Amino acid sequence: MDKAFIAAAFDEARRAASRGEVPIGAVVVRDGTLLAAAGNDVVGAKDPTAHAEMLVLRQAAKVLNNERLLGCDLYVTLEPCPMCAQAISLARIRRLYFGAYDPKGGGVEHGPALYTQPTCHHAPEVYGGLHESEAAALLKDFFKARR
Amino acid sequence: MDKAFIAAAFDEARRAASRGEVPIGAVVVRDGTLLAAAGNDVVGAKDPTAHAEMLVLRQAAKVLNNERLLGCDLYVTLEPCPMCAQAISLARIRRLYFGAYDPKGGGVEHGPALYTQPTCHHAPEVYGGLHESEAAALLKDFFKARR
Repeated sequence: MDKAFIAAAFDEARRAASRGEVPIGAVVVRDGTLLAAAGNDVVGAKDPTAHAEMLVLRQAAKVLNNERLLGCDLYVTLEPCPMCAQAISLARIRRLYFGAYDPKGGGVEHGPALYTQPTCHHAPEVYGGLHESEAAALLKDFFKARR
Repeated sequence: MDKAFIAAAFDEARRAASRGEVPIGAVVVRDGTLLAAAGNDVVGAKDPTAHAEMLVLRQAAKVLNNERLLGCDLYVTLEPCPMCAQAISLARIRRLYFGAYDPKGGGVEHGPALYTQPTCHHAPEVYGGLHESEAAALLKDFFKARR
C-alpha cells in the first residue's frame, strides 16, 4: 500500500463532491506509477456505469492498450459495488485497496461477496478499511449537505 | 417480449463474432422503439468493461440524456455477468430478457444471483432462456472455430 496513491484517490473523491457527485475516487497504479485517476461521474456524464472504478479501469486499459491490466493495483475510497468488483476481476487487477466498508451496497466484503463465488475466475488480493474514518466522513458530509 | 428485439440482439452477437469478439449482443428498447444496439467489444476497444450490455446501457443513457433508463427494457443473448447485472440494476432497467443461461459466468440466475441479494436496490423483471439453443449454438461455434 502506498499512501500517496490512497491520497490521490481521496483527492478525486473530493473533486467529485465539488461537482455534485457522490464523492468516490479511484486510481490505477503499476510499478509505482499512477496510470489513471478519476472520480465518480454518474450525474455529470449521465452514465449509470460511470463509477470511479469503471472510469479508471477503462482509462488504464487505454494507456496500456490492453484490456487486461496485468500487474496493476486499484485504490478506491469506498468498497466497490458488485458492478465494479466484477469489472476489477475481469481486468485482472492484482491488488484492490479500498477505504470505507459499504455494508449497504458493497460487493466485495458484503452482499454477494463476489470474489468468494465459485463463478469468479480471478480474485485480486483485497485490503479494505484504509483511512476508513476519512472515507466515511467524506460521504457523510456530502449526504448531510444535500438533505 | 418482442421477437424483433431479441432478433436484433442476435444480429449484434453475430456481428461481434465476425469481429473476433465473444458473440454476445444486446439492445435497449423503450415504448416499442429501439434506443441502442451493440455487440461485445472487449478486444476491439481494449476495454475490459465493454460487454454488450454495458455498451447499450451507456448508449441509451446518452440518447435519453439521463443516467436512469426508466421504462426501458434490455434484451441480451446471454445471461449477464455480475458486472452487467449490477449495471442493469443501477440503470433502473424495467425488464431483462436474456437468451442462454450461463452457469459458469452468469450473475442473475447463477453465481451471486445478484437480484436476490438484500443489497440489491432495484431488480428488473427477468425473463431467461429465450431462443436458448440459438444463443448456445452461437457461442459453441465461436469457441470451436477458435480452437
